[in-house]
Amino acid sequence: MTERKKSQCNQERRSLLIGAGKIAAGAALVSAGSFTLPKLAKAKAAATQWPWPYVKLDPAKTADLAYEEWYRVFCGAAVVSSVFSQLREKVGEPYNSFPVDAFVFLEGGQVGWGTICGSNAGANMVANLIVGPRIAGATEGHLMSEDVMQWYSDTALPVYVPKKPKQTGEIVKTTSESPLCHVSVGKWMKAAGKPIGSPERKDRCARVAASVAFNLVTMLNDWKDGKYAAKSTHSPVKDFGITGQFNCMECHGNNVPTPPMAKK
Amino acid sequence: MTERKKSQCNQERRSLLIGAGKIAAGAALVSAGSFTLPKLAKAKAAATQWPWPYVKLDPAKTADLAYEEWYRVFCGAAVVSSVFSQLREKVGEPYNSFPVDAFVFLEGGQVGWGTICGSNAGANMVANLIVGPRIAGATEGHLMSEDVMQWYSDTALPVYVPKKPKQTGEIVKTTSESPLCHVSVGKWMKAAGKPIGSPERKDRCARVAASVAFNLVTMLNDWKDGKYAAKSTHSPVKDFGITGQFNCMECHGNNVPTPPMAKK
Repeated sequence: MTERKKSQCNQERRSLLIGAGKIAAGAALVSAGSFTLPKLAKAKAAATQWPWPYVKLDPAKTADLAYEEWYRVFCGAAVVSSVFSQLREKVGEPYNSFPVDAFVFLEGGQVGWGTICGSNAGANMVANLIVGPRIAGATEGHLMSEDVMQWYSDTALPVYVPKKPKQTGEIVKTTSESPLCHVSVGKWMKAAGKPIGSPERKDRCARVAASVAFNLVTMLNDWKDGKYAAKSTHSPVKDFGITGQFNCMECHGNNVPTPPMAKK
Repeated sequence: MTERKKSQCNQERRSLLIGAGKIAAGAALVSAGSFTLPKLAKAKAAATQWPWPYVKLDPAKTADLAYEEWYRVFCGAAVVSSVFSQLREKVGEPYNSFPVDAFVFLEGGQVGWGTICGSNAGANMVANLIVGPRIAGATEGHLMSEDVMQWYSDTALPVYVPKKPKQTGEIVKTTSESPLCHVSVGKWMKAAGKPIGSPERKDRCARVAASVAFNLVTMLNDWKDGKYAAKSTHSPVKDFGITGQFNCMECHGNNVPTPPMAKK
């Protein structure tokens, strides 16, 4: 069923998204001005107007920064830091004023609750902070977030090998089929036979953050060049009638409920 | 099993958290200075030093702001906006420079993928942006995030009734037993018999955002008064050996796997 449902939704996603964006665009554009607060208006203007200035970054260098930062601020903040620390040097504001370290809480699927993998949450933040929110008229940030999670779900991770790895030797790779921390790290721990507190598991998650950062910057560089093309085929609200992942049966088994649907 | 597991972990959480905080505190404090970039140093200093200045807010007023903002920026950004818009007026920086609207992507459990409910993600952001990250020596932001998600999971939502509701009449309330969008909205839709695109479902989610904002500001006010006491009893890494929720059987059925555990 998973494959069938996935194949249904190849063509339909963008029209829905564009429609939803149009509905809210008016109100958002009215309130996006930066003229209300004279004090430090420059910093505010830089942070609340989109897109944020972006210069292309080296994906491998970004991945290595994310890997190193994982050991300081963990997955979510590491992905944000890997991109923003370089843009602080190359651009300045609004990256200087962005409080990256506060996002340590993204660790472990948000304070250990195993919800969205922090690497995905951090990458989604970066994409939408730089490109801007869809209600401001840009849809690429939203589409990149879909791609972040689809790529994460479909890829045998970690793919990136850091230049200075803290753990040596071949690392087990697993495909999560989910953007959730609990599912992703659980499948890896089962395959690797390593507990959550092991140095191997920590290094795996640091390399996942590096892999996600590499993929994110590759997309942002394409976007900067005007050649970003969204790849995700997952359209849950349209295809399933509810927000969700694509692998219904992994949690529901054979009893996948049918949500209440709108009358045609 | 859920109840038994939950009861195991009442006393043990804080010692683990405090231990983890100590490990990383050294590196974080070294890098928290604001002296490296003279330009706009004031804005940067305001945003990257914790705690951010906070004045107590009216929970009901905050909830109504979140409710109204849901219809502009959806769940996650609505919760952030409800708090930060007031603190912009009462405090100024660093709230002026924070790009709230970029967080529209938190909608639908992050661009519709049904992961963490945006109201929880937004509340977690606010708590950790104001209180600060645990690696900077403060643990209350982390603890508040645990409380945000435990309260959300255990409460029949929505509890807050807006002053000017867009939908009138009694609203169905459901207890999600999960911080995830998919689980939360799915249980509500089943109980209410309303589809995802219905005005009733939208108003339910706007009221959930309002309810979460009310609870969040109640905690922040207590913290400001020096009387915040963490309530969450969920300690997944210690109790289960993996990041996760507390209701293992809801997804796993009777075949709850045992993760690889550290040798004692």
